Amino acid sequence: MQSGLFITLEGGEGVGKSTQLRLLRDALQSHGYRVLATREPGGSAGAEDLRQLLLFGKNPLSLRAEILTHFAARFDHVDTVIRPALAEGQIVLCDRFTDSTMAYQGYGRAEGQPAVLDLIAALQAQLGLMPDMTFLLQAPREITRQRLAVRGVPTDRYEKADEAFHARIAAGFMAIADQQPERVKCITTANHSQEAVSSLIMKEILPRLPHV
Amino acid sequence: MQSGLFITLEGGEGVGKSTQLRLLRDALQSHGYRVLATREPGGSAGAEDLRQLLLFGKNPLSLRAEILTHFAARFDHVDTVIRPALAEGQIVLCDRFTDSTMAYQGYGRAEGQPAVLDLIAALQAQLGLMPDMTFLLQAPREITRQRLAVRGVPTDRYEKADEAFHARIAAGFMAIADQQPERVKCITTANHSQEAVSSLIMKEILPRLPHV
Repeated sequence: MQSGLFITLEGGEGVGKSTQLRLLRDALQSHGYRVLATREPGGSAGAEDLRQLLLFGKNPLSLRAEILTHFAARFDHVDTVIRPALAEGQIVLCDRFTDSTMAYQGYGRAEGQPAVLDLIAALQAQLGLMPDMTFLLQAPREITRQRLAVRGVPTDRYEKADEAFHARIAAGFMAIADQQPERVKCITTANHSQEAVSSLIMKEILPRLPHV
Repeated sequence: MQSGLFITLEGGEGVGKSTQLRLLRDALQSHGYRVLATREPGGSAGAEDLRQLLLFGKNPLSLRAEILTHFAARFDHVDTVIRPALAEGQIVLCDRFTDSTMAYQGYGRAEGQPAVLDLIAALQAQLGLMPDMTFLLQAPREITRQRLAVRGVPTDRYEKADEAFHARIAAGFMAIADQQPERVKCITTANHSQEAVSSLIMKEILPRLPHV
């Protein structure tokens, strides 16, 4: 029944996902497409409540419970926002999705422990929706750290985590891209202007778009 | 590694689960056992936060997201409270567990829709812990409604639901008991004193207890 296109942007903090999301939305709209731009965790009313608990909650959850809570938010987002938009033929752009759970919880927190990767894979299978295209944005850690400092936004639980954790996440994203090269395209944002990166992504998307 | 015994009490609102939990805890402690009495949703700090959201949240979740959130709380409860207590050889008594999700969300809200029952079964399998014994407390709806009115506690989302919903839940619990008769024992609380019901349950439990 899906007639739209589901595109996700992935990567660590400060790689430029939200900037690219805005530029892509504007470019697609200027081509005449109806676009829904959203982000995770969150993106629906119920999922935003769960996001608050995940990012700023006082009581930490067990690793498995944290994974389940991310997917609880994701199921709500998919059921109430993403699927209805795709069914209407919209292009859905999402800042983070399932690959972030695999990278942060699976490779980052669990250090690639097979039982945890299996749990995430089982939840993905139950979800029943994967992106049509995923752009994995990448930049060296020195650059992303600078960008985050300039941004000066309040740091949540993930942005405060240590450097070894961030290295495992970057390696986790690379592992996902290696396993699914037809879906996941790697794009470096380090030495290019935001506009150049956006053009690169648009070049990949255009052949996949339905005619308007 | 589990050396304790995991016992759950199940059933609709007002059947007497929390009273029986207290009586059982006292009886087992008087026999010299170390007992952990707990309840779901909740039972651990992180799970209590999720409980608040489930029972009193302003933004309703999609049915699948509600199920995931119940299991998120359950995974935290199992990982941080129940499994450690069982590993220490404690008797764990729990007011509601996985069967409540099957009865309320699977049979109640989803009306037995196979995709939803499958989702719950998949999450149960990932959880990796089922009760050793479950007591399904039952009483006619007229009696439980009276008990709830007398109790006068603020009614949450479930207690306010309509009668057809409660009938599906009762039928759902019966279906679970029919499928797993070796684990689930049905006990009526309608025409017996609380003490008589407790003795009946203790008679079932005693042969399963380790020697102290």
